[in-house]
Amino acid sequence: MRVLGVDPGLTRCGVGVVEGVPGRPCTLVAYYVVYTDPADELPLRLLHLDTELTRLVAEHRPESVAVERVFSQHNVRTVMGTAQASAVAVLAGARAGLPVQTYTPSEVKAAITGSGQADKAQMMAMVTRLLRLAEPPRPADAADALALAICHIWRGGTRARIAAAADAVRQRTAASRTGARPGAPGRPGPKRQGGTR
Amino acid sequence: MRVLGVDPGLTRCGVGVVEGVPGRPCTLVAYYVVYTDPADELPLRLLHLDTELTRLVAEHRPESVAVERVFSQHNVRTVMGTAQASAVAVLAGARAGLPVQTYTPSEVKAAITGSGQADKAQMMAMVTRLLRLAEPPRPADAADALALAICHIWRGGTRARIAAAADAVRQRTAASRTGARPGAPGRPGPKRQGGTR
Repeated sequence: MRVLGVDPGLTRCGVGVVEGVPGRPCTLVAYYVVYTDPADELPLRLLHLDTELTRLVAEHRPESVAVERVFSQHNVRTVMGTAQASAVAVLAGARAGLPVQTYTPSEVKAAITGSGQADKAQMMAMVTRLLRLAEPPRPADAADALALAICHIWRGGTRARIAAAADAVRQRTAASRTGARPGAPGRPGPKRQGGTR
Repeated sequence: MRVLGVDPGLTRCGVGVVEGVPGRPCTLVAYYVVYTDPADELPLRLLHLDTELTRLVAEHRPESVAVERVFSQHNVRTVMGTAQASAVAVLAGARAGLPVQTYTPSEVKAAITGSGQADKAQMMAMVTRLLRLAEPPRPADAADALALAICHIWRGGTRARIAAAADAVRQRTAASRTGARPGAPGRPGPKRQGGTR
């Protein structure tokens, strides 16, 4: 599974492309930071970001896009630009017809380090280890974007495994019910929802 | 001059198209409210808004787009969605190659009513009068979008008149300087910036 992660920002927007399967070290494909000039007008900045993100999605053809969810408890001055950059990132994925998932910073930290309160250094160390890199990816915006992509691969994988397990339970249940009613051959067992959601 | 105004919102986004020249009553072309379902996922909502705004820009072919500038002093809970919707609106104009201008609510109020502190009722009454409508445009999101478009026509016009006046001063200055130096025929007067900015 190839995932493009975006750590949205109007001045610096991190982009990380990662390939992997759940629960195993992932492979780094590429990472970038898209810069826009704070001296430029907003339309120009958003257009530049849109052009670059759309190009990177087309170039790397990920199966899905993961974007950090913006929180209002951030610095209120910068949160507006971050919210606008995140909209551009979400749109770049959605316009390409890709599933786009957002994750909170705590969800990403928990997925990567096991703790939702992990600090920057811990996150950087784990991203470096999980991607089997010789050196930490720089700048931090790129590392955050890679962490988002890894988080999505692993969490998506967890969801897929839960769904597969639920399917297996469902099939076994249906089979045993059919088997318990020899007097009604060919009659399918009642449909049941798996208990795991 | 035809202007498409956008009052950005994620749940309700007002769009107003107006034609006119500075300082005179304008003509209403059309107005809309684009709704997105709060129960839907963010990517779907942003994509819907993007599709509709892009379609309206293509349909009405405005010369420019005016979008309300989002302020952080708004309710912090809703400001995130508003910021994201405004990014979609700004992009829809910029991607079509149009100039996009943002205005604060006070700028719009001052342009329409003469007071930056005008209330909703005053604004609605002035928009109705300036567009020579029999009834106020509803809902309020549409009226706000129309006010933005009128504001842009008038302010753009003011800027254009100031630039024209500055040009005239510049030309006159250059002419008189050239005229005052008969000993240096053909030598152009020094370049000067107009005093009005």
